[in-house]
Amino acid sequence: MPELLPRARASQESVFARMSRLAVQHGAVNLGQGFPADAPPAFLLEAARRAVGTLDQYSPPAGLPALRDAVGADLGVDGADVVITCGATEALNVLALSLYGPGDEVLMLEPVFDVYLPQARLSGAQAVTVPMRLDPLSGWSLDLEEVRAALTPRTRALLLNSPYNPTGTVFSPHELSALIALARQNDLWIISDEVYDELYFGERPTSLRTLAPERTFTVGSAGKRLEATGWRVGWIACPPGLSGMVAGIRQQGSFCSPTPLQAAVATALPLARTEGFYEGLRQEYAGRMALLAGGLRDLGATVFTPSGTYFLTALHPEWKAEELVEHAGVAVIPGEAFYARHVAPPGLLRLAFCKSRVEIETALGRLQRVRV
Amino acid sequence: MPELLPRARASQESVFARMSRLAVQHGAVNLGQGFPADAPPAFLLEAARRAVGTLDQYSPPAGLPALRDAVGADLGVDGADVVITCGATEALNVLALSLYGPGDEVLMLEPVFDVYLPQARLSGAQAVTVPMRLDPLSGWSLDLEEVRAALTPRTRALLLNSPYNPTGTVFSPHELSALIALARQNDLWIISDEVYDELYFGERPTSLRTLAPERTFTVGSAGKRLEATGWRVGWIACPPGLSGMVAGIRQQGSFCSPTPLQAAVATALPLARTEGFYEGLRQEYAGRMALLAGGLRDLGATVFTPSGTYFLTALHPEWKAEELVEHAGVAVIPGEAFYARHVAPPGLLRLAFCKSRVEIETALGRLQRVRV
Ligand SMILES: Cc1ncc(COP(=O)(O)O)c(C=O)c1O
Ligand SMILES: Cc1ncc(COP(=O)(O)O)c(C=O)c1O
Repeated sequence: MPELLPRARASQESVFARMSRLAVQHGAVNLGQGFPADAPPAFLLEAARRAVGTLDQYSPPAGLPALRDAVGADLGVDGADVVITCGATEALNVLALSLYGPGDEVLMLEPVFDVYLPQARLSGAQAVTVPMRLDPLSGWSLDLEEVRAALTPRTRALLLNSPYNPTGTVFSPHELSALIALARQNDLWIISDEVYDELYFGERPTSLRTLAPERTFTVGSAGKRLEATGWRVGWIACPPGLSGMVAGIRQQGSFCSPTPLQAAVATALPLARTEGFYEGLRQEYAGRMALLAGGLRDLGATVFTPSGTYFLTALHPEWKAEELVEHAGVAVIPGEAFYARHVAPPGLLRLAFCKSRVEIETALGRLQRVRV
Repeated sequence: MPELLPRARASQESVFARMSRLAVQHGAVNLGQGFPADAPPAFLLEAARRAVGTLDQYSPPAGLPALRDAVGADLGVDGADVVITCGATEALNVLALSLYGPGDEVLMLEPVFDVYLPQARLSGAQAVTVPMRLDPLSGWSLDLEEVRAALTPRTRALLLNSPYNPTGTVFSPHELSALIALARQNDLWIISDEVYDELYFGERPTSLRTLAPERTFTVGSAGKRLEATGWRVGWIACPPGLSGMVAGIRQQGSFCSPTPLQAAVATALPLARTEGFYEGLRQEYAGRMALLAGGLRDLGATVFTPSGTYFLTALHPEWKAEELVEHAGVAVIPGEAFYARHVAPPGLLRLAFCKSRVEIETALGRLQRVRV
């Protein structure tokens, strides 16, 4: 047989897929992978059942016009600047291929969402990571000086995530302005991964695009917004004039996104606003977050209360993710999964609270027994 | 603003997307892009309506186990060797990234299905193309000597398509055996794009995998088989032991395929067999092909009767695709769209007959008026 390429030999199951597989295998409560326990809203499901049998053939690679317009209206941009993708994962991949290549560097923060690194590698660029600071008392913080120090003449783009998986950080307008100033001084693109834009627990997050529309690509996900992670409908809001180029790259990867599900999301996005769906989601998740955080603190964990996303990070010196899934029947993500260049804070874990209250309570009960 | 990369600047709307856009713009009958006029079968639609609201979250990147097993059972391979993708387009992209890279060559035939070339480029490999011969009397044929002559020590893979879009060729077992002998002598992978495996008009096509299971990756598409091109469910049947590596690359592109549509296809694949769906499809398309081919011949075109796919090729010295869509109200694909390295036969056009009889008759009527 021919030999396999290094990139193929290095290809591995992601930690999220692996933990979900182990969770099934060991009958564990899955607080690992970020998919919700609840069903998507009825207005989305009904729209999909109507679209199936009506809109079943290829859409344009940039997306169904109705969905591009609906995303545009939702974000306050022109639908012509929106490109629809197979989830935010594909959106990020398309941007990596569109914006950087061999000889370039892309700057991102650690802990890092796992696909950012292989996608940068595939583009040919070098990923440069700057670690977030973690203080056991005050939690996660961004060191702007470290970001500045990591820039080189080869840096082409900043890749940011706010609300931030896994830290739960929502960057302040002040931090965003400082990052934009760096981007402007150094002529950088900004990729702003905002898949959790509607999942916040304090002030509404500021979208980077509103501060630097000329250079910011905003990445979003209907899967995260509408609790349908398996539907694979995501989007990119591009700076004016660049959507044609992005769609050209996008069509080579998977041609277009699932048409009937695009149509359903187009119907659902305005309804989610008028029906107050996101407010309900935030309220519900704030309650589940408090339940999980309180329970973990009672078990001796240091918990960093998130400002957004449906994850929280915690430190517990005695818990190891690999052992928990097998022996305690609770799947969580180990902190090391988010670190490639720097060392993860010892004992760091990420736990998802987009799960049912019963699942969260069961997991806490099982973790209590481990403690003994 | 930062500069754009060469690959981004070169990115273009595909000819299929462009012709469909022009067809809408000019109110043209669309015999261009290969999507069917008919709705998908009721057993598929019903399965999707049931899956929506039940299976809405991430599937494993390799695919829902039920669908991997259903594809495996349909093709006669182990479900563990199957990887599900967002359409055959993504399957082909994943294989390009998995099997070749910088310094490698991949051998393919011209006319070439459009995504093969940018996907090879993205992988870092060089595409080498061998032209099919076209004789106005006997039609398309493969020159095995030319294939042999195009092999170099850098060739890593053969990328074949049978039934062949656009020529309609179904390679004979003899031709396939000769190609496999070359692959074995030169230690090559084989990528066999068989998205039209159930669309043939004579003998059932031989699947390359059955002759060289150790090195053949078979690419398939539920979109083509079940008349739902917009659903984005495709697959790769891998040689034993390689699906984990392929799934690892696949998850970086779009993580997984749309879960409810995967579930529906898993239900539909065995039903398509028991209900005789593919026989019905072949019968219906044979009739429409005869209608289109006869009409085109009456208008002075030389038509090459296809042995498979839902396309036919024809030569007409006076018809230009760009003019037909604008002035005759008929969208077709110009032959040049399938040629990058070699010169397309002058006057070559590809026409789709997966359209309704009314559309085909309307198109013929409009073409008749052009003739004057
Ligand atoms: C920060 C971040 N970006 C992107 C994604 C991928 O989203 P999608 O499911 O739409 O591909 C996720 C999913 O967990 C995420 O957490
Ligand atoms: C030869 C060939 N391969 C692959 C594809 C892509 O199939 P899918 O729609 O499943 O991505 C097509 C679509 O026309 C095709 O003709």
